[in-house]
Amino acid sequence: MNAASPDICVVGGGIIGLATACELAGRGLRVTVVEAASIGERAAAGVAAGMIGPVSEVDVSHPDLTRFALASHRDYPAWIEQIEAVSHIRTGFDRTGTLWVAVHRDHVAWLEHLRAFQIDRGLNTIRLTAGEVRAREPLIAPNTSGGLLASDDWQVDPRRLLGALIEVLAQYHGTLLQQVSVERVERCDEGWAVVAGGERGRTRIEARSVLLAPGAYGTGLLEPLLRDTGLRPVKGQVARLRGEIDVHHVIRTPDVYLVPRADGEVVIGATVEEMGFDGRVTAGAVHDLLREARRALPGIAELELVEVRAGFRPVLRDHLPAVGRIDEGLFIAVGHYRNGVALAPITARLLADLICEGVADQILAPFNPLRFAQPLVANAVPT
Amino acid sequence: MNAASPDICVVGGGIIGLATACELAGRGLRVTVVEAASIGERAAAGVAAGMIGPVSEVDVSHPDLTRFALASHRDYPAWIEQIEAVSHIRTGFDRTGTLWVAVHRDHVAWLEHLRAFQIDRGLNTIRLTAGEVRAREPLIAPNTSGGLLASDDWQVDPRRLLGALIEVLAQYHGTLLQQVSVERVERCDEGWAVVAGGERGRTRIEARSVLLAPGAYGTGLLEPLLRDTGLRPVKGQVARLRGEIDVHHVIRTPDVYLVPRADGEVVIGATVEEMGFDGRVTAGAVHDLLREARRALPGIAELELVEVRAGFRPVLRDHLPAVGRIDEGLFIAVGHYRNGVALAPITARLLADLICEGVADQILAPFNPLRFAQPLVANAVPT
Repeated sequence: MNAASPDICVVGGGIIGLATACELAGRGLRVTVVEAASIGERAAAGVAAGMIGPVSEVDVSHPDLTRFALASHRDYPAWIEQIEAVSHIRTGFDRTGTLWVAVHRDHVAWLEHLRAFQIDRGLNTIRLTAGEVRAREPLIAPNTSGGLLASDDWQVDPRRLLGALIEVLAQYHGTLLQQVSVERVERCDEGWAVVAGGERGRTRIEARSVLLAPGAYGTGLLEPLLRDTGLRPVKGQVARLRGEIDVHHVIRTPDVYLVPRADGEVVIGATVEEMGFDGRVTAGAVHDLLREARRALPGIAELELVEVRAGFRPVLRDHLPAVGRIDEGLFIAVGHYRNGVALAPITARLLADLICEGVADQILAPFNPLRFAQPLVANAVPT
Repeated sequence: MNAASPDICVVGGGIIGLATACELAGRGLRVTVVEAASIGERAAAGVAAGMIGPVSEVDVSHPDLTRFALASHRDYPAWIEQIEAVSHIRTGFDRTGTLWVAVHRDHVAWLEHLRAFQIDRGLNTIRLTAGEVRAREPLIAPNTSGGLLASDDWQVDPRRLLGALIEVLAQYHGTLLQQVSVERVERCDEGWAVVAGGERGRTRIEARSVLLAPGAYGTGLLEPLLRDTGLRPVKGQVARLRGEIDVHHVIRTPDVYLVPRADGEVVIGATVEEMGFDGRVTAGAVHDLLREARRALPGIAELELVEVRAGFRPVLRDHLPAVGRIDEGLFIAVGHYRNGVALAPITARLLADLICEGVADQILAPFNPLRFAQPLVANAVPT
């Protein structure tokens, strides 16, 4: 280790890795981020719609996860304010809210079910009649029979956010290495060495601490450190439309979401597919997304279809993220599944507390990575 | 005019321009083709599915056009054989035939209507029961209630065909200028001058003869020569899938066609839209194409969606092409609408007869461009 060595090396330039790297760099640490591809290319956030929806996601979230998401939600406005102030990049953060709509009878029943979850957990939504839905969004399908308004479920543009975080990292004198693929981490004299290959040959970065935030691609990295995490990619196909459409809320049905942005983009998502790293965009998925989107908002038919892409959400065996310490100086943040963008600020802040001050907030307890078995240390850290 | 001048300058490197240029070059003429874009970029054939279907298109074709299409159909096998022999490029020409299927009651009625047209014009199709449809294509939707087999309706891959024609032209020592946009043609001493702009500056090509084959983009060129042709683009959006699917016939319903190729491509088309040169791919069109295609052949859902593009079919006021002479040494072939690929061989051969020998086949009579009014010669050909 020498004077040029960073204090911490962050492995993974997705939303979690970059957000935490920025937080650490902002606290004065020398940070190096290593990303296997280009930023946004492999990141799940590069495909994600960017919903910040603890209220809307309640039915698919463990109560611990909802609590974590609500904490992240509280952090969001100030977090975005700082990112935009430092980067001078607008992130598309928008607090208009999310409007759930029912366009057939099954949807009505389903929204009742969602509403029951929300009430049970003390979350705030408002039941709307069809007329009240239309008053808020006149372009919603005329056969809508009602909806739910989740005013606290916001959105951000994840691609802009990734770009802004890169700029923040640069402003904070962090280092970003792209196209460098990390093969393993190993103990070294004063901490950890990150060993990587890549187009520019082999790289070895020594640092006092290492944070692993590899997203869905982390199986090989994690295997020697944690057993049976079951880390796997969950494929999501997402369509991007563009054009003039007078819609302001995030629109959701039980079958689809539509995220309209101020810049004219409308994101439609998303499939949930257990297909490994099969990145193909399929005819059936595109058809299903467009059909359900059109059912809710017929006017999208005239918008330009500009992109369909597949991303890979990282999910662990128990569908909860792993955020914490796995060894002296070795940290992990992985498995944020559908919630990477939503959970980025809280993950970054609490990990930075843990890394800088050794303090683990109680809210992190359910996400302790040591709930997964560790191999013998001899296997874990080859020397 | 000098020794380097071509005998004929063909304006337009679409399927009609290239096919005729090759025919003329094969007969020993020095030919220069001038194309405003890159070959295949603006050409309707660059988007087209490549059906050669005089029997299937009978209901939307004037009897004169069906006759013309049948003549072209007779030419096709030998024409392809020669192109492939000279170019050493496979064109994907396939004679498996077209299978029409009914997947709901309206389709049944519609196929009866199509069948009546075919019988009336003495064309050969076979009525199939649902079982007979499935015996030929087991992957057809199980709710199919029957179909029609048009064994004589074939297909070719228009992109491969364009590529092969470029190679044939080169073998025949023809010249191809791409990215050269023709502004006008004007009389010159011994024939016609083609005046063009483009990335490489201004170009002036003098030739004894000129053939205008500008496709949908020809309005400006035609205006001083023929009045009230009504030439306009008819937008068609086409999706291309790719993958393994065991289907061999061209599959059609009244709402969609699917063209499977030996190389794994499945082309799904096409919208018919009066939108001018609006080249946007729209969410509604993609949705409709995939919905109807999936109705006929559910297995396409698992195929990769690799491309959706819009093309512009050139159509004249009366929906018939204009193929012939409009002045001494000045020829035109435009307005082939949905039939450019299907009509290419006959158009090329009969135009070559007309240009080389002054002989106009009687089958061309209904397509005489002089059915449109000509402006005063003074306006027509500025000197």
